[in-house]
Amino acid sequence: MSDFHETPRFPRGFRCAARNCGLKEADPDLAVFYSQVPAAAAAIFTRNRFPGAPIAVGREIMRKRRLRAIVVNSRISNVATGEEGIRNARRMGEAAARALDVPADEVLMSSTGVIGRQLPIQRIEAELEGIADALQDDPLPGARAIMTTDTHPKALSLSAGAATLTVVAKGAGMIAPNMATMLTYIFTDADIEAPALDRLLRDAVADSFNMLSVDTDTSTSDTCVLLANGLAGPVPEEEFARALRAACIRMAEILARDGEGATKLLKARVSGAHTKDEARIIARSIVESPLVKTMAYGADPNVGRILMAVGKCVDCEIVPERTAVRICGELVAERGERVPFDEASVRALLAGDPVEIHVELGAGAGEATAFGCDLTHGYIDENAAYYST
Amino acid sequence: MSDFHETPRFPRGFRCAARNCGLKEADPDLAVFYSQVPAAAAAIFTRNRFPGAPIAVGREIMRKRRLRAIVVNSRISNVATGEEGIRNARRMGEAAARALDVPADEVLMSSTGVIGRQLPIQRIEAELEGIADALQDDPLPGARAIMTTDTHPKALSLSAGAATLTVVAKGAGMIAPNMATMLTYIFTDADIEAPALDRLLRDAVADSFNMLSVDTDTSTSDTCVLLANGLAGPVPEEEFARALRAACIRMAEILARDGEGATKLLKARVSGAHTKDEARIIARSIVESPLVKTMAYGADPNVGRILMAVGKCVDCEIVPERTAVRICGELVAERGERVPFDEASVRALLAGDPVEIHVELGAGAGEATAFGCDLTHGYIDENAAYYST
Repeated sequence: MSDFHETPRFPRGFRCAARNCGLKEADPDLAVFYSQVPAAAAAIFTRNRFPGAPIAVGREIMRKRRLRAIVVNSRISNVATGEEGIRNARRMGEAAARALDVPADEVLMSSTGVIGRQLPIQRIEAELEGIADALQDDPLPGARAIMTTDTHPKALSLSAGAATLTVVAKGAGMIAPNMATMLTYIFTDADIEAPALDRLLRDAVADSFNMLSVDTDTSTSDTCVLLANGLAGPVPEEEFARALRAACIRMAEILARDGEGATKLLKARVSGAHTKDEARIIARSIVESPLVKTMAYGADPNVGRILMAVGKCVDCEIVPERTAVRICGELVAERGERVPFDEASVRALLAGDPVEIHVELGAGAGEATAFGCDLTHGYIDENAAYYST
Repeated sequence: MSDFHETPRFPRGFRCAARNCGLKEADPDLAVFYSQVPAAAAAIFTRNRFPGAPIAVGREIMRKRRLRAIVVNSRISNVATGEEGIRNARRMGEAAARALDVPADEVLMSSTGVIGRQLPIQRIEAELEGIADALQDDPLPGARAIMTTDTHPKALSLSAGAATLTVVAKGAGMIAPNMATMLTYIFTDADIEAPALDRLLRDAVADSFNMLSVDTDTSTSDTCVLLANGLAGPVPEEEFARALRAACIRMAEILARDGEGATKLLKARVSGAHTKDEARIIARSIVESPLVKTMAYGADPNVGRILMAVGKCVDCEIVPERTAVRICGELVAERGERVPFDEASVRALLAGDPVEIHVELGAGAGEATAFGCDLTHGYIDENAAYYST
């Protein structure tokens, strides 16, 4: 297993700085992440058909596959803002480029928060001036500035050979009363070419952030970027891939556990599926089911809900007679039938954190794990509230 | 428009009777629906891959396309119950057939309630004996007996030419702390052959019950059956189809409105989609989005959530620049951008019931409407509760 550093730290040559530009009352709401040398870069953006302006501009920026910096604000997502929004996204990147003395086409920008409002672009430009002086080597101030209603800043790091991998992220799913977003920035000093970086990122995301669901809703701003500045020299690809995958999965768990109103992490592992793709579909169906999520919240061993969530994947190969279900290791259904089990002990397992559901399908070798959280009163409270204007 | 009868009544030749067989404390929990003469029949069952025993047996029964009766119990769904469950489903149908003096292969059975428990089959058999004497011509006692946590019995009727159409149904989605189900029984005295009946039912269900979602979870027992006993003679097909469609849509609205914890009906109409199928996908995505549902609950005009729910249908033709959104008639987004609107008045519209969202896509002629409800604390209460054993 990969060992995460006790305190997250940046790889060689990466820095960040955070400011308040008036979007949050006093907390930092604007951050830059910076590499002292050009970094090879790969990115994955939301597939939502109403992408934010930073996504539209970001897709252009990423054609060069090279980044020096990322600039991010929280509280306003710059989505559904038309031409003015596009201009503001560019201006935000250009202001960061001037402040950090790097090429404007090597600065990616992200915005997260409410939809349909224009950014206070002049204020952002003003706050970015001189921000280079504030660059420092702890990733947590950056992680804090990009928070919406995340309950804590999210950063982790680990070693991959001589290199370091650091992940800074914010809330998955719709964390805020307003539209929120998953933003994940991954920094490494390993020396890896952009094409390999892209492939490695896609592989790691497929098993981590793409298997993460807080509430099935897909943000218009989701962004995951990987920067490799090479300062630690080359690392065996397999070793790097293993560390990257472990880091992404761990961060996916952290994001799921801090989902809106969540009291626990909900993991669904599906094995014996006909294909890997079917395993993914079924695992996601389990962690996305409102009835399984409320079962986890209520610690109620209602096994039928798990069978239902599996069975609703109507296009997958599912044979009830070969299907077994375990809750935190305890067998609760076999051959598609509920089996007798000690309700009190399963109830106690469900009351814990995380809740792990394992479904064995006996149909093939496909395996996948999905990450989610319980569905609680807290989710309703956060999302039914009046949004602040 | 179709006129619904003020008090629902059965078509000629249909009757029902209800009993308590000990599954509910004192309320009726067992019902038979009966036609005095053989009826042509069509049925649509759940696509869930863990179908209940009554679904497995029911699919056999329906091959004959002829029914004389339906027998239904609530509180136990007879799902995930193995061979014993299959035997019990057959025994339940046979007991009803003996009691009503009709062929056993013309009796359909349904069960709704908790999964993984065996039916108290001897008690059911005992209660069915002599039930013929209790047959009467008001559909409401039957509607009451099949309720799980529905807050009221659901039946409606209307005329189609000389014939009558009557729909008796129970809760859509997962209504109970236990696995619940949509059961819909449609009775008519129109004279229609089974093949035409099947086609008409599929058409009507496509625009009504298949566009209904309380919580995206698909029951293992969903059943929709249409019986035509011919006692009113033939009816012009177009007239019958219109009445059937109107009855199914009205019942879908009633079921959605009474979804778990719901305080209002949520309707999403999509027009101008590239195809009818894409209109269906997008309309369902809107009423299924937890963020749109909590927005309706909180009466919060967070327009971005609607755009997000449209945009997450990534395989549909969606052009932000051509997309407009209305909430209860009020324009809130145009060309993919939020437009200025009077927040107080839109908030007042959202506080009402129903909440109607209209999305115009400008991409074609596809149109569809989906039916759902808001997501509330009541949903969490009902579903996080310990299930009664």
